[in-house]
Amino acid sequence: MPPGMNKMTNSNKKIKAGILGASGYTGAEAMRLLLRHPNVEIAFLTADRKAGQPVEEVYPHLGGYGLPDMVSVEEAGWASVDVVFCGLPHGTTQEIIASLPGSVKVVDLSADFRIEDPATYAEWYGHEHRALHLQKEAVYGLTELNRKAIASARLVACPGCYPTAALLSLLPLVSRGLIDADDLVIDAKSGVTGAGRGLKQNTLFSEAGEGLSPYSIAKHRHAPEIEQEVAKAIGRSAGDVRVNFVPHLVPMSRGELITAHVRLTAGKTVADLRAAFDAAYNGEPFIRPLGEGAIPHTQMVRGSNNCVINVFADRIPGRATVIAAIDNLVKGSSGQAVQNMNLMFGLEETLGLEQAPLFP
Amino acid sequence: MPPGMNKMTNSNKKIKAGILGASGYTGAEAMRLLLRHPNVEIAFLTADRKAGQPVEEVYPHLGGYGLPDMVSVEEAGWASVDVVFCGLPHGTTQEIIASLPGSVKVVDLSADFRIEDPATYAEWYGHEHRALHLQKEAVYGLTELNRKAIASARLVACPGCYPTAALLSLLPLVSRGLIDADDLVIDAKSGVTGAGRGLKQNTLFSEAGEGLSPYSIAKHRHAPEIEQEVAKAIGRSAGDVRVNFVPHLVPMSRGELITAHVRLTAGKTVADLRAAFDAAYNGEPFIRPLGEGAIPHTQMVRGSNNCVINVFADRIPGRATVIAAIDNLVKGSSGQAVQNMNLMFGLEETLGLEQAPLFP
Amino acid sequence: MPPGMNKMTNSNKKIKAGILGASGYTGAEAMRLLLRHPNVEIAFLTADRKAGQPVEEVYPHLGGYGLPDMVSVEEAGWASVDVVFCGLPHGTTQEIIASLPGSVKVVDLSADFRIEDPATYAEWYGHEHRALHLQKEAVYGLTELNRKAIASARLVACPGCYPTAALLSLLPLVSRGLIDADDLVIDAKSGVTGAGRGLKQNTLFSEAGEGLSPYSIAKHRHAPEIEQEVAKAIGRSAGDVRVNFVPHLVPMSRGELITAHVRLTAGKTVADLRAAFDAAYNGEPFIRPLGEGAIPHTQMVRGSNNCVINVFADRIPGRATVIAAIDNLVKGSSGQAVQNMNLMFGLEETLGLEQAPLFP
Amino acid sequence: MPPGMNKMTNSNKKIKAGILGASGYTGAEAMRLLLRHPNVEIAFLTADRKAGQPVEEVYPHLGGYGLPDMVSVEEAGWASVDVVFCGLPHGTTQEIIASLPGSVKVVDLSADFRIEDPATYAEWYGHEHRALHLQKEAVYGLTELNRKAIASARLVACPGCYPTAALLSLLPLVSRGLIDADDLVIDAKSGVTGAGRGLKQNTLFSEAGEGLSPYSIAKHRHAPEIEQEVAKAIGRSAGDVRVNFVPHLVPMSRGELITAHVRLTAGKTVADLRAAFDAAYNGEPFIRPLGEGAIPHTQMVRGSNNCVINVFADRIPGRATVIAAIDNLVKGSSGQAVQNMNLMFGLEETLGLEQAPLFP
Repeated sequence: MPPGMNKMTNSNKKIKAGILGASGYTGAEAMRLLLRHPNVEIAFLTADRKAGQPVEEVYPHLGGYGLPDMVSVEEAGWASVDVVFCGLPHGTTQEIIASLPGSVKVVDLSADFRIEDPATYAEWYGHEHRALHLQKEAVYGLTELNRKAIASARLVACPGCYPTAALLSLLPLVSRGLIDADDLVIDAKSGVTGAGRGLKQNTLFSEAGEGLSPYSIAKHRHAPEIEQEVAKAIGRSAGDVRVNFVPHLVPMSRGELITAHVRLTAGKTVADLRAAFDAAYNGEPFIRPLGEGAIPHTQMVRGSNNCVINVFADRIPGRATVIAAIDNLVKGSSGQAVQNMNLMFGLEETLGLEQAPLFP
Repeated sequence: MPPGMNKMTNSNKKIKAGILGASGYTGAEAMRLLLRHPNVEIAFLTADRKAGQPVEEVYPHLGGYGLPDMVSVEEAGWASVDVVFCGLPHGTTQEIIASLPGSVKVVDLSADFRIEDPATYAEWYGHEHRALHLQKEAVYGLTELNRKAIASARLVACPGCYPTAALLSLLPLVSRGLIDADDLVIDAKSGVTGAGRGLKQNTLFSEAGEGLSPYSIAKHRHAPEIEQEVAKAIGRSAGDVRVNFVPHLVPMSRGELITAHVRLTAGKTVADLRAAFDAAYNGEPFIRPLGEGAIPHTQMVRGSNNCVINVFADRIPGRATVIAAIDNLVKGSSGQAVQNMNLMFGLEETLGLEQAPLFP
Repeated sequence: MPPGMNKMTNSNKKIKAGILGASGYTGAEAMRLLLRHPNVEIAFLTADRKAGQPVEEVYPHLGGYGLPDMVSVEEAGWASVDVVFCGLPHGTTQEIIASLPGSVKVVDLSADFRIEDPATYAEWYGHEHRALHLQKEAVYGLTELNRKAIASARLVACPGCYPTAALLSLLPLVSRGLIDADDLVIDAKSGVTGAGRGLKQNTLFSEAGEGLSPYSIAKHRHAPEIEQEVAKAIGRSAGDVRVNFVPHLVPMSRGELITAHVRLTAGKTVADLRAAFDAAYNGEPFIRPLGEGAIPHTQMVRGSNNCVINVFADRIPGRATVIAAIDNLVKGSSGQAVQNMNLMFGLEETLGLEQAPLFP
Repeated sequence: MPPGMNKMTNSNKKIKAGILGASGYTGAEAMRLLLRHPNVEIAFLTADRKAGQPVEEVYPHLGGYGLPDMVSVEEAGWASVDVVFCGLPHGTTQEIIASLPGSVKVVDLSADFRIEDPATYAEWYGHEHRALHLQKEAVYGLTELNRKAIASARLVACPGCYPTAALLSLLPLVSRGLIDADDLVIDAKSGVTGAGRGLKQNTLFSEAGEGLSPYSIAKHRHAPEIEQEVAKAIGRSAGDVRVNFVPHLVPMSRGELITAHVRLTAGKTVADLRAAFDAAYNGEPFIRPLGEGAIPHTQMVRGSNNCVINVFADRIPGRATVIAAIDNLVKGSSGQAVQNMNLMFGLEETLGLEQAPLFP
């Protein structure tokens, strides 16, 4: 039994959590979830450019909940917390996490510890990794498929939003040898929050609205992350797998959908794929393989930590289409982070994540 | 201590609730809130045209939560429930509620018991009232301003979405004599869910999207409801107050905003209005008067039972602008209904309603 | 010189056009374009359920332009027109067109004459074809790739919106042997107008908004149409080609984007594909292959008859991604129809279609 | 006959136009309209921060039309143009326009020459006016109500988007003494393009979407502009009229709607107001008073220079509601600018503006 478990079951002592980068969307979503988590108390919120501001100036919807004012990273009281959620930009994250006391657990929402191979990291992120010793102990936080390692980790690197949906769709299939890992076409679609709260012309309402835009075609940083995990699942070395990955910006705030066009291994059928999902996700609280013919869409999961998934025959013989939908800010980010924190502290995995989806 | 309190605190016996008209948006929202309410168990869901269907065919986002299948009203097990939430069309509601056993409490989301004067009801709803004896015992369910009567009622008529926001904005001011009740201009804006899930051309995505449409100008059924409550608050007879009320359909799913343009009583100031809000809503869990200058907007309350409110000086001397925002499906409908149910059963008023707003 | 040319250049005699099914979105778009066409006069508009209504009751934005009132199909004055645009449901179209005088040219926007093989038609549309003799003379109206036949046709079957974008993307490549016709993955995305103005729950604002939904996976009627034209382009018999086709409903009114994931023929490169587009569309007024790296998006073409197109290397060696964007109601429907009419009457092909895209 | 008329009718000499500030939305809209204007040639486009870029990098939808590259203001060839459209920020505009050769006509889209009283200008815009001599000759460009002065002006100050809709709604009524100029409540709603293309957090898709936000309550710079014109229309001195003006940001890109709540002069009726609109706008090509009961909405005018308008009885006796809708980027900005240019050069007023609205 992990030590956290003892701590939690004894009386009402709460986990003290800090949120780094609380002014971004993932930070706000972590606040939203944690302020209703029965075993967590938010100890501090950092947001360098907003330091000194009350939460309601940064996020008016969170006013009135008694959250602490924003502080700078320098002012953060590390000694007072059990865990930090880190939503800082890549690079910065590495330096700050490296400076933390070893007693503080880290749930990292950035990309900083997702890529195991230093050369691949440097190639895609444009600089050498600044905390390679930590990279070695980091655990990839795709909860359902890496639960055991997460439970005992100090530093969990939560997957990117696209990799979360893509890997939940593909890993049960490639690991069972049901589909061809060298012919994975991942057509991905995301709501605009996926691009963050920073000011960019293409995410203005009048630019992103009433339209659909592919972007970063074959150049998105989530591609090597997907390739790494697919390679691991089938026992190949990283770099030996290449996937097609084409993301599209959709005029909605939240939601992410993966349409994976796959080739079946000779002799395998769509029914085999469905059975694999049922087996892989049996009993999972958040992953829901749908009944035959039911099509996942993002409105089924908005605001929740749920993932819906299904598989369909293709018109081309020997091919299939796998579809999964998540809320990019919840299961694709802060929700999965809270789920991982629950695991790391020996708590019921669903705590703080019980909200049903918001529809319409 | 109300009797409900005893019932609830003793062991884990849960309130059994039925939802009538569960296939509409208010019904779905009642499901969403009640399935996470710690003291409530959903006993049945009626939806005549969907009878026999599992919830996930009617509302895919609510699949997997173990909710019962839809049944027809005739199949509803009245004897098994403590309370029904009624989201049926007007007229129908009266007949069904009249047929219920007296032991069942009723939280009515329809318009059927909101209008006290039978002639006014007939004028606006096009038919004679069919359950006048029940109308007499019905309590108007604007929680914060009618709490005591609601707590002991058997039948609560929840206000319309617009009247909720309008009356929370205006009653504290007219009842204190701070503004002129004969010069109330209520410019109202609502998201498209306010029009319900029925199929209408003007609520199609391509008709309602990318545009703004006023509707029912000076003819909306919520006008007499607002007038009735304003008249009562200042001791006039119903029909002695006339308000301007112009609603607009906004291309968003949820959210409602009232911009009330009011005339100050001679000698009164905007500061007096602000003080009135602070006094009226001091300690309220869901109503939040904002600090001077902070402007309410609907994104501050989405998915929550919250109401944000503020008042601003007008450029015309002696006038002011009062603004309030709610989520029309929560505080404007099913959330307030759950709040009222909590009161009627002696429960903590916030149970099942603790979710923070969802933003973005 | 086609006879139409003479007719047009002589004095100011205008082509008289009737629109069948004018209450649908394609009908409205035909009105919008034709009422500004210098050589066309709209003679009648049919809309059975709206017969007798002025245009502005059916389409308020078209009030004030002097358009005729809606009539029933029975009241249409066939003798008075040179051409009809037909936006009726499939099946109905066949019967009405079969009954027209031979002097009237027909630009059909329905699916009725797109499928050449009667068995395929019956399989996908659920009934035997009712005007096979006309099917034989019908010309497939993909303007840029079938211009000559269109110019001399009496009956043009305009392509579906998806096939328009898909075939403009794929035909220049398969016909030149640059990509594998047996490995075409067409991931398609459309705005909500693609589903028409009929009342359906899934196209309500609150259902389609803030979300993304795949639909008709591997079962969409546009798939056999794409397969037919691809097969013809490479000299195979219909039914010998199968394509993947997965459409998605996007929360925007207009716009359509095709992301085609293709496999290069051995030895061919992305540069070869780009060269093929440049060759195929050199001098075309509406088709614009973009410069290397520029990504097509639907906001580039809204309200216009334009198509933007480009090709990108895939991460998987030997694969590429082709992307094309159109406005589904213009190039994907009524705009291409007007373009075809111009050809059929020997007019300048761009007449009535010169509007620049509307952005934002 | 104005001199411009001669110039235009003689042969095919075209007006040469420059656009200052072409990278903003009003600049883009001026390009869209002018590139299809039969008598205009676009000579240069300035955009300081984009100088050197082709149009399609700044506005991809305008690629392929042969427009000139962006240049800096310093590089603009003043000698070569007959007219400039100026979409620069206030203040800057004054300096640049003051430096222009007297032969160049100016259609100013900025706020710089709208306010006649220097003190009022300084109060609202935060600095002294820098070209008072030009202010004196500037003509307020509300076309329908100031046509004669515009036709002979060199410098036309086009109204703000809100004042355009508000004054078209109110001036015919106050000038005829039909309503009380001291009780004008103007509840205004605008699409997000009204806030421009600059990067601001509140106009990000995920901030402005799915929500409604009032802003600049009683502090918007369009208020003094409306007051000035109302005062002039009734022969009062500027500063003697105060109006209520509360704008709201609506989650749509284009469109503006004014809901004006007005008090009738004793003895006047809604029918009198309707008659005033019919009289004022009889024969106007772009202003359309609707039939009794028909409600203006923004989808009726999108992309066009049209304004729809109507008046409704209020529930409060002696009051009425006037509603007008325009496209803020066309009639509210660049469309009205082109209309004014047509007048200034003696052209048919509708040239370049004949497009029907785009719906859906």
